[in-house]
Amino acid sequence: MSVTAPQGFMAAGVTAGFKPSGQPDLALLVGVPGTTATGLFTTNIAAAAPVGIARERLVKGGGRAVLVNSGQANAATGERGERDARAITEEAAGLLGIEAEDMIPCSTGVIGEPLHLDVFSGGLRPLVHALAPDGGDAFARAIMTTDTVPKSAVSRSGAFVVGGAAKGVGMISPRLATMLAFVTTDAPIAAPDLRLLAETELKPLFNAITVDACPSTNDTVLLLASGAAANDVVRPDDVAWEGLAAAVGEVGRSLCSQLIADAEGGTHVVIVEVDGAADDADARTIARAVADSPLVKTAVFGQDPNPGRILQAVGSSGVELHPSLIDVWIGGARLVEGGVIPPSYFETGGLRASAKEAMAAQEFTVRARVGSGPGSARILGCDLSYEYVRINGEYTT
Amino acid sequence: MSVTAPQGFMAAGVTAGFKPSGQPDLALLVGVPGTTATGLFTTNIAAAAPVGIARERLVKGGGRAVLVNSGQANAATGERGERDARAITEEAAGLLGIEAEDMIPCSTGVIGEPLHLDVFSGGLRPLVHALAPDGGDAFARAIMTTDTVPKSAVSRSGAFVVGGAAKGVGMISPRLATMLAFVTTDAPIAAPDLRLLAETELKPLFNAITVDACPSTNDTVLLLASGAAANDVVRPDDVAWEGLAAAVGEVGRSLCSQLIADAEGGTHVVIVEVDGAADDADARTIARAVADSPLVKTAVFGQDPNPGRILQAVGSSGVELHPSLIDVWIGGARLVEGGVIPPSYFETGGLRASAKEAMAAQEFTVRARVGSGPGSARILGCDLSYEYVRINGEYTT
Repeated sequence: MSVTAPQGFMAAGVTAGFKPSGQPDLALLVGVPGTTATGLFTTNIAAAAPVGIARERLVKGGGRAVLVNSGQANAATGERGERDARAITEEAAGLLGIEAEDMIPCSTGVIGEPLHLDVFSGGLRPLVHALAPDGGDAFARAIMTTDTVPKSAVSRSGAFVVGGAAKGVGMISPRLATMLAFVTTDAPIAAPDLRLLAETELKPLFNAITVDACPSTNDTVLLLASGAAANDVVRPDDVAWEGLAAAVGEVGRSLCSQLIADAEGGTHVVIVEVDGAADDADARTIARAVADSPLVKTAVFGQDPNPGRILQAVGSSGVELHPSLIDVWIGGARLVEGGVIPPSYFETGGLRASAKEAMAAQEFTVRARVGSGPGSARILGCDLSYEYVRINGEYTT
Repeated sequence: MSVTAPQGFMAAGVTAGFKPSGQPDLALLVGVPGTTATGLFTTNIAAAAPVGIARERLVKGGGRAVLVNSGQANAATGERGERDARAITEEAAGLLGIEAEDMIPCSTGVIGEPLHLDVFSGGLRPLVHALAPDGGDAFARAIMTTDTVPKSAVSRSGAFVVGGAAKGVGMISPRLATMLAFVTTDAPIAAPDLRLLAETELKPLFNAITVDACPSTNDTVLLLASGAAANDVVRPDDVAWEGLAAAVGEVGRSLCSQLIADAEGGTHVVIVEVDGAADDADARTIARAVADSPLVKTAVFGQDPNPGRILQAVGSSGVELHPSLIDVWIGGARLVEGGVIPPSYFETGGLRASAKEAMAAQEFTVRARVGSGPGSARILGCDLSYEYVRINGEYTT
C-alpha cells in the first residue's frame, strides 16, 4: 500500500505519455487538510527547477500534495523550466481545489528537455479522477524510470503507520540528498518536528547509498504527516515519538535497501563498513572511496576477493592514515592485517577461498578498520557490471 | 629507442617468469657513472615497498639504475616486501658492480603477493647480460602488464635527447604521482635542477590523466640524466634549459597520451577542458569530476552527447558555482548555455547531431566554462566500456 498505508492520504498513477513505452508516468499524492510536510533535496548546484519550487513552498508551510512526472527531469531548463513547473502545479491544484502553494512538483527522467505541457495537461484530469485511498501502489509504479521494480515500505508504531515509496537506480549517490522518495505517516506532527524526523531518521540513510557516485540534479526525499490517526500532536518528548521515529527509520532503511538492490546493472549489494577512523566524517570519506572505486566494483562483479584494490581505495581516499594500522575483511575473512595481505591468502583453500564464498551471497560486507579512533560509517553500494555500461551507454538520461 | 635514445644509457628486458603468459617481465635501465636521477611517486598512503625504497635512495643521491618487474606489485607486503626489494636490488647491483643505493626498484602487477625471489634471481643474470645501448624497446616491452602496446617517446633539443617509456592502463589516476614512467636525457643536469624539471614539466602532465579515478599504490615517474652529451652542466638560467624543458615536456605529453589511448577497455580519449573557475585548483576538481563520472564515461562509450550528465558532474563537484554561468561544449557544439540545454538540442539535425559527429572521433574535447574567473584545467580521460568491466572483473590486480 506504499504511501497510502497511513490514514489521510490518497494517491494515483496514470499514463500521461511522457514515456515512449506507454508505462505509467504521472503520479499524485494528496494528504488531508492539515497535513504537514518537509523535504530533503539534492546538493547538486545544477538542481532541477522543481527542486527549487519544492524548497520554496515547503519553507512557506505548503506541501499537502505531491505531483510527480517520470520521463522528463525538468533540469537544465532554466527559467522556462520554472515557469512550466509553476503552471502545471497551478493547473493540478485548481483541479483539486487546493492552493498551488500546497502542491510540490517532482520530476525525474531525461535532463534538459523542456516539459511537454500538453502531455501534462492531458494526464491531469484522469490522474485526479483516479485518486484513491489505496492508490499507493499505482503511485509507486508511476514514478519509476529505469527501475525494474516499484519500491515501497510500511512500518507501524502503536496507533501510527508510516508508509513510503521511492524510485531511482542510476545517478544515485544522494548528497541531500534521480532518486525520489516519499514517506508518509498518519501521526499528527508539527512541521519543525517533522523536519527533525527527516534530518535524524532519513537523511543519514539516503546519504549512505551509492550506485555510481553521481549525485543527481533531482534527488528529493519528502516526508508528509496527515495527522489522521490521532488528535494530539506528537512531539519529540512524547512517549510515542521514539517508536514513530523508529518506524520512519525502518521505512527509510527498507526503501534504501530496495534502491540499491535494484541498482542499474547491479548483481550484488556491498555493505562497506569503516571503523577506527578519527571521526565519522573521515570514516564516511573512506567508505565512499571503497564503495565508489570502479576497481572494487568490478571485482565485486567478478566475485574476485581483491584486498589490493580495497587497500588502494582506502589509501587514496585523502584521509591521513597509517598503513600499518589497516585491517580489511570480506565477510569473516581478514584479508589485510596491519596493511599486509597475509601469505595464507595465496594458499589454495585459504583466506581467498573463504572470502570468495562470502562474495557469492547477494549481499555481503566489506569492513575496513583503519586505526583506533571513534569514527565509523556504513555505506550501501553495488557492483559495476556489463549491464550498467549497457544501460548507460544506450539510455539517454 | 625509448629510454636509450639519449646517450649514456643501456637497457634490457627479459622473461624471468613472473607472468604466466611467458611475456617479458623483468627490465633494467642503467646510466653511466654520474647520472643524476629524481622521482615523482604515488600519494597513496598504502604505497608499495619499492616506492619507499626508491624515495629513500633518491634523497640520498642514488638512482643511476632502475630495476623493474611486472606481474607482482610488491604492495601490501609489509616489512617482508621491503626486505625482498632490498635483497633483490643488492643482488642486481652486485652483478652490475655498482652500489645498491644506486639501484631504484619498481614493481607493478598483482597487489599483496610476496615477491617470488627465485624468479627474480633466475632472471637477473640474463637481464644484465642483455643490457645494450639499444635496449630501450625491450625495456618498454618488459614493464607492461595489461597494456596492449609498449609506450615510448623521444624528443630532441639542440645537442640533447630526451627519451621515455611508460606502462599502465588501469588503476590510473596518478596523484604524484600502476603507472610507471621513465624519462631519460643525455644532458648533464644537477639533481636539484632535475627535480625542478620533473616538478614543472612532468608532474602536471601525469597528474592530469585518469582512466578510473583510482590512484595506484605503485605510481612512479623517474627522470634520469646521464650527462653523456655534453661536459657543461645545464642550469635553469642557461640558454639550453628552455629547449630541454620543452623536450622533457614533449616526451611526458606523448607518454601520457599513449597511456590514455591504451586505457583499459578505452575506445575514445576525452579531453576535458575547464575554464572560468575561481582558480586552477577549482578547475581541476571540476574537470576530474567530469572525466571520472561513470555516467559521462558510459555516454562517451555509447557516443551519446549527453549535456545533462556533464552538467550533473559539474554541479556535484563540490565547487561553488552559479548554474546560470555554466556553458558546455562537445567539440564545437555548445550544448549548455547559461545552465540551460537549448531547445534546438532536441531538434532533428540540431546541436545534438553535430555533437554526436564530434564524438565519433577517436579523441574529442568536452569543454565547460563555469564563470569568468582565471582558473583553468585540462584532464585526459577515456570511456567506460564493457571491456573495462571484463578486464577488471576477470583480472586480479
